[in-house]
Amino acid sequence: MAKVNDNYLKLPGSYLFSTVAKKAAAYTEANPDKEVIKMSIGDVTKPLAPAVIEAMHKAVDEMGTAEGFHGYGPEQGYDFLRNKIVEKDYAARGIDVKADEIFVSDGAKSDCGNIGDIFSVDNKVAVCDPVYPVYVDTNAMAGRAGDFTDGKWNNLVYMPCKEENGFMPQLPEEKVDIIYLCFPNNPIGVAATREQLKPWVEYAKKNDAVILYDSAYEAFITDPDVPHSIYEIEGAKEVAIEFRSFSKTAGFTGTRCAYTVVPHELKVDGVELNGLWNRRQCTKFNGVPYVIQRAAEAVYTDEGYKQTREAVAYYLENAKIIRESLTEAGFTVYGGVNAPYIWAKTPNGMKSWDFFDKLLEETGVVTTPGSGFGPSGEGYVRFTAFSTKENTIKAMEKIKAIL
Amino acid sequence: MAKVNDNYLKLPGSYLFSTVAKKAAAYTEANPDKEVIKMSIGDVTKPLAPAVIEAMHKAVDEMGTAEGFHGYGPEQGYDFLRNKIVEKDYAARGIDVKADEIFVSDGAKSDCGNIGDIFSVDNKVAVCDPVYPVYVDTNAMAGRAGDFTDGKWNNLVYMPCKEENGFMPQLPEEKVDIIYLCFPNNPIGVAATREQLKPWVEYAKKNDAVILYDSAYEAFITDPDVPHSIYEIEGAKEVAIEFRSFSKTAGFTGTRCAYTVVPHELKVDGVELNGLWNRRQCTKFNGVPYVIQRAAEAVYTDEGYKQTREAVAYYLENAKIIRESLTEAGFTVYGGVNAPYIWAKTPNGMKSWDFFDKLLEETGVVTTPGSGFGPSGEGYVRFTAFSTKENTIKAMEKIKAIL
Repeated sequence: MAKVNDNYLKLPGSYLFSTVAKKAAAYTEANPDKEVIKMSIGDVTKPLAPAVIEAMHKAVDEMGTAEGFHGYGPEQGYDFLRNKIVEKDYAARGIDVKADEIFVSDGAKSDCGNIGDIFSVDNKVAVCDPVYPVYVDTNAMAGRAGDFTDGKWNNLVYMPCKEENGFMPQLPEEKVDIIYLCFPNNPIGVAATREQLKPWVEYAKKNDAVILYDSAYEAFITDPDVPHSIYEIEGAKEVAIEFRSFSKTAGFTGTRCAYTVVPHELKVDGVELNGLWNRRQCTKFNGVPYVIQRAAEAVYTDEGYKQTREAVAYYLENAKIIRESLTEAGFTVYGGVNAPYIWAKTPNGMKSWDFFDKLLEETGVVTTPGSGFGPSGEGYVRFTAFSTKENTIKAMEKIKAIL
Repeated sequence: MAKVNDNYLKLPGSYLFSTVAKKAAAYTEANPDKEVIKMSIGDVTKPLAPAVIEAMHKAVDEMGTAEGFHGYGPEQGYDFLRNKIVEKDYAARGIDVKADEIFVSDGAKSDCGNIGDIFSVDNKVAVCDPVYPVYVDTNAMAGRAGDFTDGKWNNLVYMPCKEENGFMPQLPEEKVDIIYLCFPNNPIGVAATREQLKPWVEYAKKNDAVILYDSAYEAFITDPDVPHSIYEIEGAKEVAIEFRSFSKTAGFTGTRCAYTVVPHELKVDGVELNGLWNRRQCTKFNGVPYVIQRAAEAVYTDEGYKQTREAVAYYLENAKIIRESLTEAGFTVYGGVNAPYIWAKTPNGMKSWDFFDKLLEETGVVTTPGSGFGPSGEGYVRFTAFSTKENTIKAMEKIKAIL
């Protein structure tokens, strides 16, 4: 008799963002005349950059000719893209990353989830709390998280990020094997400086642990003390895998391209993880569409860079509007300087979902309840800066009006 | 201390197709003046259909405007595509498949590999021998295959497909839980009729087993007795998951789109696999690019259908040329009628790799050694029909000349 993966049955019912979407849909149905402004899911709204559009048209034309047609490409990505990543994202910052350490993929979500394939079930995993749910759920599915009781998985190590520690996780007291870090952080929107990252690399070296470093929001960094890559920290290539994405950098959420860096120096019990990940990708993945890789390549042209950075600046301006407006309205807020997320403390100690409901009912603004990201997110809601500027201003005015 | 997934370390060194590619590259380097004709990897050569190109251009334009921009799409695929699949691939053949049973993805290889996520490690798996290596390797990686000794994994059940059984697998004598079937078959190129499939559905029902049915080559079916979907067999929706792809149907090997059908009726120990796969995809996948889904949709327009079927007919004509030429040259060949693959017996009982080398050295034609697909493939090589017609004819003439 076939048997399912029982770990799936332990997952709590519904995914955070679908619950949020359902509540928003129910509100719209009950209030068809009222406007809804979504500041919940981290999805971009600005169109793709003209340079990207141009590159895609050119690649589509190639695919329609016998000479320009591309069939199966390398599972790891085309050299034209891997070389550009090496040059522009790493060499330009003085970081030595090789092209064969870059694995182009369809998304950081896929990679953050699939990376678990190359690790034993028998690893102790540490996650920040609150946290991007994919890290937790994929480990739960793989059987690394244990059982879910009282809002926590009993085999995960949670690293609380709260007001009292400046929302920075502390080094785990017990020994852990795999550590997920995300800076600039989702959902809190804070970023770690070089000095703040150093102890993590030291911890990983000392304990033979691996850091899974999600750097999907690096394009939003404005502070020179905040590293764009964990490899800016000495020794990090021996202990860390880095995830990057074009989703937020270049508005590729519906275009799908990302990459993961697995340095050759990174060995676990003498085994190069680069080889294992390469084997995983060659066996279970067939590369990113040719036209999409050409689109990603265009992000690195002078024009493409300028255009995509303008979009990032636009979202950062929204973040500033949210931060300042909420502060003015009496909220305590965090993040939003090096990230498109603003972490707002609910007024009078309200529960996250209660405040989410209040905002939705009274203003039509959709946020994400902090508690959905983990127990330590209780008492907060997350705003995203990805709306239009007009809607962002409108949402802030509505919120000010009810307080 | 972090621990790797030890199962990866049990995998034999190199992937079949990379060894083939390396040998071909070495030949080219040693013989720069000689032409190489690749009939090894199953990659298409004809450009994308004009209707597909047009749809992609239109979608690219949309992505460059504020009104037409698409961010995150549904992880399962857009309704416009799922509905077309339901209508054209299933309802048109009298098969009742619902849109929410369709999961659009980036490839059948990804899906065939990732589907293992929702099953327990503790399942007995049966595969055909010879077999598409992905089924075996992904189970080995997950720990379901045991150890690799003497060319076989000791915990897999191999179902030999040989001349004496018409290359049709026999029902396993021992009880198995998961059965991989691929018809029209890769690598042998034979197809199962409705009558031949029925006992498999019965077996699965009787033993509470699940059939993973890879139907990536269904567009090549010419025989009316051969079903295009396993759901043409009564009761199959209760026991089978079906994998389909646009790779060979519409030349999408470098464009990347496929889909998997998980019927609601399919329950394992009372659990709907549809829900588990949905959870897997929502957690570890973010959907196929919008422009690519529009490209796939165009395959179902009248023009797109006509154009893509012309390409399939072109490859089938190549298959006919290969079959007839090799037969004329004294070879015993199979397949190539309902599939783009021809399975040729080596002359005088030569070993697969020896004959591969002989063909490469003496004609510059690259095939795939049958033994690379499993022990029962020894004594065969696989030809693919995806070259140009000119190269196919040229290759056949060269082979005839050396025999």
